[in-house]
Amino acid sequence: MLLGKVTGTVVASAKDERLKHFKMLVVETLKPNGKPASGYVVAVDAVGAGAGEVVLYVTGSSARQTVLTDKRPTDAAIVAIVDTVEVNDRVTYQK
Amino acid sequence: MLLGKVTGTVVASAKDERLKHFKMLVVETLKPNGKPASGYVVAVDAVGAGAGEVVLYVTGSSARQTVLTDKRPTDAAIVAIVDTVEVNDRVTYQK
Amino acid sequence: MLLGKVTGTVVASAKDERLKHFKMLVVETLKPNGKPASGYVVAVDAVGAGAGEVVLYVTGSSARQTVLTDKRPTDAAIVAIVDTVEVNDRVTYQK
Amino acid sequence: MLLGKVTGTVVASAKDERLKHFKMLVVETLKPNGKPASGYVVAVDAVGAGAGEVVLYVTGSSARQTVLTDKRPTDAAIVAIVDTVEVNDRVTYQK
Amino acid sequence: MLLGKVTGTVVASAKDERLKHFKMLVVETLKPNGKPASGYVVAVDAVGAGAGEVVLYVTGSSARQTVLTDKRPTDAAIVAIVDTVEVNDRVTYQK
Repeated sequence: MLLGKVTGTVVASAKDERLKHFKMLVVETLKPNGKPASGYVVAVDAVGAGAGEVVLYVTGSSARQTVLTDKRPTDAAIVAIVDTVEVNDRVTYQK
Repeated sequence: MLLGKVTGTVVASAKDERLKHFKMLVVETLKPNGKPASGYVVAVDAVGAGAGEVVLYVTGSSARQTVLTDKRPTDAAIVAIVDTVEVNDRVTYQK
Repeated sequence: MLLGKVTGTVVASAKDERLKHFKMLVVETLKPNGKPASGYVVAVDAVGAGAGEVVLYVTGSSARQTVLTDKRPTDAAIVAIVDTVEVNDRVTYQK
Repeated sequence: MLLGKVTGTVVASAKDERLKHFKMLVVETLKPNGKPASGYVVAVDAVGAGAGEVVLYVTGSSARQTVLTDKRPTDAAIVAIVDTVEVNDRVTYQK
Repeated sequence: MLLGKVTGTVVASAKDERLKHFKMLVVETLKPNGKPASGYVVAVDAVGAGAGEVVLYVTGSSARQTVLTDKRPTDAAIVAIVDTVEVNDRVTYQK
């Protein structure tokens, strides 16, 4: 899993039928210290995350192991909304 | 999933028999702001995307979870044609 | 597998129900010589690792093959606490 | 899938028994414009590709979905010999 | 698969029980020309490779497809000991 920040949304009317009804969010990757890393994913949302929230996302086949995404053709899913990140005894993110 | 732009096609007469009849498209990766990222894939097309369109593509085993690509030896598939991308309350792509 | 050092924790009250009860640790990647590499993961812990310990972690679907993580939507798991790393006949890490 | 050029071979007498009898080819990655990208794989060959040919290769679990490679411990396979690549209405490779 | 050189070992007494009894080797990635690439893995050994040997390793779920590693939580395995690498009609490695 990686830390990311929800920064946007993607709307697509023509999509594979197994992806219908999923909200697709732009998640920009963060470093453990809370600063932006390079990289992003467009992820389906398994936990009701909203714009600006810091989340944990999974990629690859693991993205199909949430209750919502089983057998869906997605390779990225938000699996948690983060409350706190603590690195080297310092809080680097607090919701 | 990542955002990409369909920029070309690959034609191959000799291919694994499980890939026969698939259209293979060159998709160049985009950043959420709509600018080119480095990187590309040659993807099979699960949604009828055409040249110049902005799409969402999946990689890895997820590429075999669309209705069309089940058990096909592909590691990249186009799963949606994008209508709108909105990042930080700004529309960065509109079809 | 890659070598990493446990440097922190992520707390998340809203998470996919299949991830409930898992401790999620920030693991920063190390090179074989013991120096930091770029990169990190947030991993579930299958072996009881603690802050500051050097560990081996797996990513991708392999992270779901530990006794604890079967079918859980995680793409990173700590699978061993390292005692010794020896590279080119030199001990580069000793617990 | 990515475009690559077959530039060499790897011979190995001691190998996992599920890989016996496979030809292993060095494939150097190409960009869509036909120029070398960084990166390479050693791939098993599912289509009879030869030295100097431009091919499509898959990586990850998809490499085990060809008729030949089912359940083999390979993470890269050549799945097509490319005839033509066309990008932005320009032919960038012709066999 | 990628080419790598076995440069070390990792010893870990606390590990996931499905990894018990496996030798874990540090493998540093090589380019096809035999020079070091950046990157390494800690791989389980499916073929009896020793220090200093040039090997082929697989990553991801394919690492669980060798006779020894089925269902083990590893994402890297050595699957062959290399005898010869030939690139562009030149031998770049000979055991």
